[in-house]
Amino acid sequence: MNTQLIEKVYEEVRRKIASGEIKPNNIEVAVKEIANCENESKVKNEVIEIEEVKKVKKEGKFMQAPGLTEFVGTGIGDTIGLVIANIDSALHEAMGIDKKFHSIGIIGARTGAGPQIMAADEAVKATNTEIVSIELPRDTKGGAGHGCLIIFGAEDVSDARRAVEVTLKELPRTFGDVYGNDAGHLEMQYSARASLAIEKAFGAPVGKAFGLVIGAPAAIGVMMADTAVKTANVEIVAYSSPSKGTSHSNEVILAITGDSGAVRQAVIAGREVGKKLLNALGDEPTSTTEPYI
Amino acid sequence: MNTQLIEKVYEEVRRKIASGEIKPNNIEVAVKEIANCENESKVKNEVIEIEEVKKVKKEGKFMQAPGLTEFVGTGIGDTIGLVIANIDSALHEAMGIDKKFHSIGIIGARTGAGPQIMAADEAVKATNTEIVSIELPRDTKGGAGHGCLIIFGAEDVSDARRAVEVTLKELPRTFGDVYGNDAGHLEMQYSARASLAIEKAFGAPVGKAFGLVIGAPAAIGVMMADTAVKTANVEIVAYSSPSKGTSHSNEVILAITGDSGAVRQAVIAGREVGKKLLNALGDEPTSTTEPYI
Amino acid sequence: MNTQLIEKVYEEVRRKIASGEIKPNNIEVAVKEIANCENESKVKNEVIEIEEVKKVKKEGKFMQAPGLTEFVGTGIGDTIGLVIANIDSALHEAMGIDKKFHSIGIIGARTGAGPQIMAADEAVKATNTEIVSIELPRDTKGGAGHGCLIIFGAEDVSDARRAVEVTLKELPRTFGDVYGNDAGHLEMQYSARASLAIEKAFGAPVGKAFGLVIGAPAAIGVMMADTAVKTANVEIVAYSSPSKGTSHSNEVILAITGDSGAVRQAVIAGREVGKKLLNALGDEPTSTTEPYI
Repeated sequence: MNTQLIEKVYEEVRRKIASGEIKPNNIEVAVKEIANCENESKVKNEVIEIEEVKKVKKEGKFMQAPGLTEFVGTGIGDTIGLVIANIDSALHEAMGIDKKFHSIGIIGARTGAGPQIMAADEAVKATNTEIVSIELPRDTKGGAGHGCLIIFGAEDVSDARRAVEVTLKELPRTFGDVYGNDAGHLEMQYSARASLAIEKAFGAPVGKAFGLVIGAPAAIGVMMADTAVKTANVEIVAYSSPSKGTSHSNEVILAITGDSGAVRQAVIAGREVGKKLLNALGDEPTSTTEPYI
Repeated sequence: MNTQLIEKVYEEVRRKIASGEIKPNNIEVAVKEIANCENESKVKNEVIEIEEVKKVKKEGKFMQAPGLTEFVGTGIGDTIGLVIANIDSALHEAMGIDKKFHSIGIIGARTGAGPQIMAADEAVKATNTEIVSIELPRDTKGGAGHGCLIIFGAEDVSDARRAVEVTLKELPRTFGDVYGNDAGHLEMQYSARASLAIEKAFGAPVGKAFGLVIGAPAAIGVMMADTAVKTANVEIVAYSSPSKGTSHSNEVILAITGDSGAVRQAVIAGREVGKKLLNALGDEPTSTTEPYI
Repeated sequence: MNTQLIEKVYEEVRRKIASGEIKPNNIEVAVKEIANCENESKVKNEVIEIEEVKKVKKEGKFMQAPGLTEFVGTGIGDTIGLVIANIDSALHEAMGIDKKFHSIGIIGARTGAGPQIMAADEAVKATNTEIVSIELPRDTKGGAGHGCLIIFGAEDVSDARRAVEVTLKELPRTFGDVYGNDAGHLEMQYSARASLAIEKAFGAPVGKAFGLVIGAPAAIGVMMADTAVKTANVEIVAYSSPSKGTSHSNEVILAITGDSGAVRQAVIAGREVGKKLLNALGDEPTSTTEPYI
């Protein structure tokens, strides 16, 4: 049985799982039926291998290194991390960056804003940098949400680079409670102690626990928000919807603060109701990495 | 080797090329391998089965009921209908909802705003509810238009639920004159008597005939609008384009009012020219359900 | 089956479409019939043929002529060109068009704004028309950028038509330095002498050299912009990013002016760094047509 056939079988299995024709725990039987030729253990192993390769590729480890000193790395969601040691003075002005920052770190992505902001929040805690700007394009490659453009300012290029590195390193974790299916997505975030990126993006108080509850399509987000705030004694920092606070994304975004236990509890409650509702529109929503909340 | 199998193999090859799994110069080998290990009749049956499942699923019949009292139902365009009996007071304020409404009904969708608004208009006629807000995310899952978030306010939860139910029930009809192909979409709507949802969304006079003529890409919409208003004696209520009145969607949206016969005639004239023009960019545009105008 | 045979089939398809024997949406069926494929080894040839036909269709050569005098033509990016001889007076006012223009020319597209604006710039140089408006929907069919709606005003319909014709004719050239892959896109434009469309869209001085450097996701655009302005002595006309100057697209757009050699050099430098960075997120970015800068 050669690679093409394995891939063919794998594709068939994947499609059938997606369409609900077979359940994950019937995979082995299904693969056997579809392959209908070779011995099952071999197919199983090869399917696992393909999954492994796809996962690694998705995480950006197979990227083509561009051979530029400004390039730092890539991550989930077509995230790219860059650094500019001495930004051109005319561009500096056009971008509206504070003059004290000669160096900037750049994080940009097609898919995701929350995960990158939360990761950047850890980066500003860990480095001598500031958040210059956070912009949210209407993106996600045809999905319902945002992409992002985050700029760190630093006096020294090594600080800017370090901030970008920390952000990229944190991404697999902060993508943990992002769940998606064909119909939409859910995103939950939690930080025991918000720092300057969270403050910049959501206006949340620095040093306090912070939670994010996002549902798309927006109707699901309304329901998640209501559930979250009813579950525990939390304070609403911001409530954003398609025409207010988003870039016309199809999301409701609830940002909350309060006691760390309460915030965590509220976020989890929002997640559970969101998963059920998004499942009503399609397949079971799944995380790309591992849930952390 | 029959047509279905050829198409099946063709699709497989196309997907593998797109995903970079095989290179164009290996097509011959790949096709041979894929074709070789398929049992033709089996593949044929499976393709039909998968198509069947996809179709049924698209119509929302396979949804996973979430087991929540707040869930009302789903519809075309990833539409979801929800109800909240007693919305949290802090969220109530953050959402800017009038204090007299304890209960809200929620309609949200990835694809479509016009069909949902027209359906909601019938719902407010039929129930003791008001339209709290209509928001238009830039969505349609990579298409050229909007999704929606519509909120009904009610003093009693049974009224809110009824409004959501009526909206979902009307949707197959109001999606009747939505035509699409790969290049864009057209949407026509007509109501003999506009009510509060139409007033809220387009500023049209309540109680009068109302028509909607939408074309995407926007250039087609300009032409449809010109044809519509030249055809019959109607009054322009609103003219929206990518930078004004839309959420940067690639649409021109003409809202008209006037004598019911004239409005209907204008809408039909817009539809006919729109279908010809969209056909110039792709396949013949088709309706998902049945035209009603 | 070799290239000659494919060309033969392709010729046959084209002839049959021209003679009305087959409709564009039956192309795949027709190709199969013409090829008269019987065994699996010919599947490969069909796949290539269908791809070939689809490509040609995509380039607008197989469009279904809508039989309307207002229709001018189509082009890359689902671009459509239309003309209205005497725009309805009520619509005229709703659209905010100067009263002196009875006739309008319309260019609209799902994908691309820069290429169409640059092409329109040549059109206003070559015809007795003015640019009435340029609007940028957030589109590109799930991509990171814009579509467009460009309206030419003319006192005479033949001028409006000519402007639309020139724009469509220029498009293959102005799409030359648009590079894309699954992760994003890059766009470079250069004009030795900017005219009124460029002025309208970017505020650039008429008569001077003009350059455009665009990168998506936006992070790549920041880096391209910095490289461009550092390379040669150019002046920044505009710097746009997701939350400023774009329709929330995931792009950074740098517009520059100056000495023609310097502008060209800056644009090329931006292009080179952009290609490397976009390649770090996916396949090698390629042009749909032929680079011209």
